[in-house]
Amino acid sequence: MTALYAMPGNEAFSALLARHSGQLQHELQLHRFPDGESLVRVEPPAADADAVIVCTLDHPDPKLLPLLMAAATVRELGARRVGLIAPYLAYMRQDIRFHPGEAVSARILGQLLGSAFDWLITVDPHLHRYRTLDEAYPLDGRVIHAAPRVVEWIRSHVESPLIIGPDSESAQWVNAVASALGAPCVVASKDRHGDREVQVHLPGIEPWADHTPVLLDDIIASGHTMIETLHGLDGKRMREPVCIGVHGIFADAAMEKLRAAGAGRIVTSNTIAGETATIDISEDVALLMGELIDRRPATSESTA
Amino acid sequence: MTALYAMPGNEAFSALLARHSGQLQHELQLHRFPDGESLVRVEPPAADADAVIVCTLDHPDPKLLPLLMAAATVRELGARRVGLIAPYLAYMRQDIRFHPGEAVSARILGQLLGSAFDWLITVDPHLHRYRTLDEAYPLDGRVIHAAPRVVEWIRSHVESPLIIGPDSESAQWVNAVASALGAPCVVASKDRHGDREVQVHLPGIEPWADHTPVLLDDIIASGHTMIETLHGLDGKRMREPVCIGVHGIFADAAMEKLRAAGAGRIVTSNTIAGETATIDISEDVALLMGELIDRRPATSESTA
Repeated sequence: MTALYAMPGNEAFSALLARHSGQLQHELQLHRFPDGESLVRVEPPAADADAVIVCTLDHPDPKLLPLLMAAATVRELGARRVGLIAPYLAYMRQDIRFHPGEAVSARILGQLLGSAFDWLITVDPHLHRYRTLDEAYPLDGRVIHAAPRVVEWIRSHVESPLIIGPDSESAQWVNAVASALGAPCVVASKDRHGDREVQVHLPGIEPWADHTPVLLDDIIASGHTMIETLHGLDGKRMREPVCIGVHGIFADAAMEKLRAAGAGRIVTSNTIAGETATIDISEDVALLMGELIDRRPATSESTA
Repeated sequence: MTALYAMPGNEAFSALLARHSGQLQHELQLHRFPDGESLVRVEPPAADADAVIVCTLDHPDPKLLPLLMAAATVRELGARRVGLIAPYLAYMRQDIRFHPGEAVSARILGQLLGSAFDWLITVDPHLHRYRTLDEAYPLDGRVIHAAPRVVEWIRSHVESPLIIGPDSESAQWVNAVASALGAPCVVASKDRHGDREVQVHLPGIEPWADHTPVLLDDIIASGHTMIETLHGLDGKRMREPVCIGVHGIFADAAMEKLRAAGAGRIVTSNTIAGETATIDISEDVALLMGELIDRRPATSESTA
C-alpha cells in the first residue's frame, strides 16, 4: 500500500488520485506560526510502504521548504521510496543563463527535488532547451501530456472548433490536438512595430468564419500571448472565442484582461486548482503513478 | 578578496560588514516575476575568491529557494568556498519530534544549508537540546553572542538598571549581562492558574524600586513572555521599563501589545532590520568572518 499525502491546496487532486488508484490518503498538516515558520506533521506511512506527496508548484518559493520537510519526514518515518506528483512544475523556463550571473533556476530546483524524491510525475512541463526532464532533474522523471483530455473536452463542449496556436513554439501540439479532432488549425505569427506594439496575424483564417476559435497554450500566466491572439481576431466576426491553457496561473488579473479582450469560456486543466480547472487529468496521473509504484523492486525481506 | 552578497533586506547589514572587514560588496539582484517565480542574478566573484551571502532568516520559507539559488550560482561562477551569514537562524526551536509525525525542522533546514554552504555565522541561535550548532548543521557553524553589545548599550543608555530575565531558561545569560554591568538581577517565575491565566512573579524586586527595569530575552516574536513579565511589574511604581531582545521578529502586532503593557524603550540588535534594531553586532560578525576567510587553505596554485 502506498501513502498519499497532499500539501495544502492539493487536497482535491489528491482525493481524485486516491479514487482512481485505490491508494490511501494520509493526513498531512501544515501549521503556520505567527513568526512565519511552518510545522509539517504527517500520519506515518505503513512499514516499508512507498509515499507519494502531491504538490503543484505554481508560486513555488514559499512552498519549497515545507515540501522538502514533508519529504524528509515521511522518509525518516520509514517510507521506502518517496515520489512527488507536481502537476505544474515551476522554473522550467529559466533553463540556461540568459545573461551573465543569472541562476539556472530549472537545474537548481531539479537538484533540490532530486535529492529529496525518488521519482516525479508532472504534466506538460515547459521544456525548451532540455529535451527531457532528466536533463535538469536527477530522478526518475515522468511526463503526462494533457492533450488527450483537451481533445476530449473540446469534442464534447465546442461546436465546429478552429484550433488556434499562439506562436510557432506551440505549433506541434496544437496541430496534434486539431488533427485528433479533425478540426482546422492556424498558428499565429507576430509583427513587432517598435518596442511595445505587437500585431498578431492569423493567416488563412477567413475560410473558417463560421467556426468557434479555440485558443490553446500550455501556460496562461500573464495571459499576454493569448490576449494578443484574441486581438488578432478583432473584426473577424467569428463566434465567441474559447481560451484553453493546460496550466492556469492567471497572474496580474489575467482573467479579467482576457475577458476584456473578448474571451468567452476560459478553461484549464486541474494541474492548478481554480475556477477554470475543468479538464481533469488526474486519471492519467493515477495510472502512471500506479506503474511507478508497481515497478519498485521487492524488498530483501519479502524475497527471502 | 572575498565577494559579499546581500539577499534583499540585508543590504544595510552587508554594508556594515564590508566597512568593518574591507571586503567588497558585489551586486545581487532578485527579480520577482508576476507568476511568483524569482530570478537571482549576481555579479560574478573574482577568480578563486570566496563568496559570502548575507541573509537573515526570519520568515524563512519564501527566502530559502532564492538563497539556495544564489549559493549555487556563485559557486558555479567560480567561488571557491561559499559562506552564509544568517544573523537570525530560523527553526531552531523545532529540534526534536515533539509529537509523532512531526518534522524535525531544525535538522532538515540544517541539511539543506549544509549542502549549499561551507560555513555559517549566526548570532545567539536558540539552542535547546542541541548543545552546538554542528549537531543540526553539517557545516562549519560559528556563533556570535550579542551579550557584550547588549551590555555596552545598557551601560550607555540606562541609569541604574535592574536586569530582569523572563524565565529560568534565560537565567544564565541574563545573569552574565547583569554581572558585567555590576547591576542587580532577578529572574521571573510563573504560576499557572487554570489553562490560560499565568501570573508572573518577580521575587525580591522590592529593594530596587528606584532602578530602571530592563527586560532581556533572546527572541521577541509574539512578545508574550515579555508582556507577562511587564505585568509582573504592575503596581511596583518603578521607572518605565526597557525591553531588550537580541532578535526582534515582532509577529502579531507584538510592538503595540508591548507598549500597551507598559514598555518604554524597545530595543533589539540588528540581526533583523527594523525600527528597534539599534544594537549593532556587525563588527563582531565581521571579525569572525575575517577569521573564517583567512583560515581557508591556500590554493595549490598559490603554494606552488
